[in-house]
Amino acid sequence: MTEEHAATPSDTADRRLVLLTEGHSEPITAKTATSVLRYGRFPTVAILDSEQAGKTSQQLFGFGDVPVVAKLSEASEANTLMIGIAPPGGKIPASWHSIILEAINAGMDIVSGLHDFLCENQDFVEAAKKSGVNLVDVRKNDEHEVANRLDLREDCLRIHTVGQDCSLGKMLVSIEIARALQAQGQDAKFVATGQTGIMIEGDGCPVDCVVADFVSGAVEKLILAHQHHDMLIVEGQGSLAHPRYSAVTLGILHGCVPHGLILCYEVGRTAVNDMEHIPLKPLADLITIYENTASIMLPSKVIGIAMNSRLLSAEAAEEERERVRQEFGLPVCDVIRHGPEELIDAVLKLHAERSKS
Amino acid sequence: MTEEHAATPSDTADRRLVLLTEGHSEPITAKTATSVLRYGRFPTVAILDSEQAGKTSQQLFGFGDVPVVAKLSEASEANTLMIGIAPPGGKIPASWHSIILEAINAGMDIVSGLHDFLCENQDFVEAAKKSGVNLVDVRKNDEHEVANRLDLREDCLRIHTVGQDCSLGKMLVSIEIARALQAQGQDAKFVATGQTGIMIEGDGCPVDCVVADFVSGAVEKLILAHQHHDMLIVEGQGSLAHPRYSAVTLGILHGCVPHGLILCYEVGRTAVNDMEHIPLKPLADLITIYENTASIMLPSKVIGIAMNSRLLSAEAAEEERERVRQEFGLPVCDVIRHGPEELIDAVLKLHAERSKS
Repeated sequence: MTEEHAATPSDTADRRLVLLTEGHSEPITAKTATSVLRYGRFPTVAILDSEQAGKTSQQLFGFGDVPVVAKLSEASEANTLMIGIAPPGGKIPASWHSIILEAINAGMDIVSGLHDFLCENQDFVEAAKKSGVNLVDVRKNDEHEVANRLDLREDCLRIHTVGQDCSLGKMLVSIEIARALQAQGQDAKFVATGQTGIMIEGDGCPVDCVVADFVSGAVEKLILAHQHHDMLIVEGQGSLAHPRYSAVTLGILHGCVPHGLILCYEVGRTAVNDMEHIPLKPLADLITIYENTASIMLPSKVIGIAMNSRLLSAEAAEEERERVRQEFGLPVCDVIRHGPEELIDAVLKLHAERSKS
Repeated sequence: MTEEHAATPSDTADRRLVLLTEGHSEPITAKTATSVLRYGRFPTVAILDSEQAGKTSQQLFGFGDVPVVAKLSEASEANTLMIGIAPPGGKIPASWHSIILEAINAGMDIVSGLHDFLCENQDFVEAAKKSGVNLVDVRKNDEHEVANRLDLREDCLRIHTVGQDCSLGKMLVSIEIARALQAQGQDAKFVATGQTGIMIEGDGCPVDCVVADFVSGAVEKLILAHQHHDMLIVEGQGSLAHPRYSAVTLGILHGCVPHGLILCYEVGRTAVNDMEHIPLKPLADLITIYENTASIMLPSKVIGIAMNSRLLSAEAAEEERERVRQEFGLPVCDVIRHGPEELIDAVLKLHAERSKS
């Protein structure tokens, strides 16, 4: 097999990863690498970025002790090269073609979550055929069903993370909440809607790569598949205020018809990611926008705020947290710095209220 | 050539059409056929529906004098079979496969705007190769650019038709407005965003079939391509209140950042098309929803209302028109019954206001 779609349900391989971030190791662009390092199911042998070689993942991304190497040959025990970036537009950098070909020729599977499919590059396909390795395009899908809004189980609580912008931690917040609920013995499930979440969770749907007519249908299908759980934490994508991706955001919002929303933002960000000429909306405006837009389908409220305070000192983060708590009267935390407990309490409170009524 | 994408820019063939609506001649489903009959660039020889054979298009759809036939052989002067329906989900009815094969074998090109691509059906592809005919999939596209919100020409007026529901006449209203403006000597252009509009206009983008991440980018590309005109009338799709298609609707709304909106509705419709369990929103709610959602990107107002009064008597249509005028203080008309003049005036008024400021 040289080609595989919506890979992970059947992806039971014993993978040992090299994460490719060559020349693109800024945390926002390399979010696939950082998230797979933090939450992934497979061990990472090395990060490949010749510009950063000699460092560790701790020095590069702030956690773990995985070495950063300059060449594939320095990670000979790995069997899979995973594309570790999620750039705007989802293209494979041209300079990476030779690295990917080298990995294929060395007998490694390639796993990619980009829009630019491995299986549509003839050089990769031919080399993979020769080497007998797999090209796994996580974003490739054949979703062709519309939403029906029938058979949704109303005693399964649907929580949805939404954002001020793209690439600021909605997936991370969703995973942290789901795992913390599970640690308390709750029957909660993280519902992945993007390539990195799918790589981590082993199921989900790459919603931003679904044909537009079927976006809400694909999300509804995910809900129907998982609503035997008590609680679903549905990963958001993009932002309703993002000029590029608001359609994806709305398709998920209207496809999962959430009972409660968690608004994610990054402290200090002032403009839309990769669009410096578009200023971000204030949180107050966004709460109104998300609640109103969700409520076109089903009344829904923001029940908590997740702040990404990675650029702040501990003291400044506390000040920001308190300021936002005061402004909105909502639970606020940085799930990495403070832990997700306040948001967990908000989720359980909503679940209890809904169970009573 | 047996396969062709985004067909119409290169579709300079001398087409003589049979419109296929076999068993699906209700006006909502057969909207491609009715619109191509009304506005299309090519002559229609016959409508093919054995259940309605013997009637004329006047009896079946309310205009024209094209015969409805039971068999392809009764329209021997035609050279193209056009799929005349737009069903939910965009699938070709299974019972049509033999009709399409018969047409291919008789040497006819096939033109389709469905999601179910002709060129992905091996039987059609092989037969087309043998007969030397073209399979034209109008919805097939390879849009892969994100929106940038740069270089929009602010002295090109962007008007956008939005709706209470899908399939109630947004394309028709857009065409009528554009043509009436042209008839007055204005430099206006209809911007097609769906397969039928593309078949009629000869250019455009099948937005509902674009990969979700690139929906707004595809629409922005249309605007950039046509903004040398003074006014663009951008066809809307679906509805922000439609559980299936709201993502498509928003992608166009945020991709074309309109200066003014025209809200379209059908008098007497109470539930979402094909979803009887979902009631429609009142017009007052929809005006708020569209204005608020458009204004996330650029402040925009509903400047007029287009009513589809096809089910009403002339008297009842006048009463409805007056009632809606009173309720909203906006121009209201049925562009077919009353002509589009009131909406044209609203467009020209907005254009004049913007030119002054």
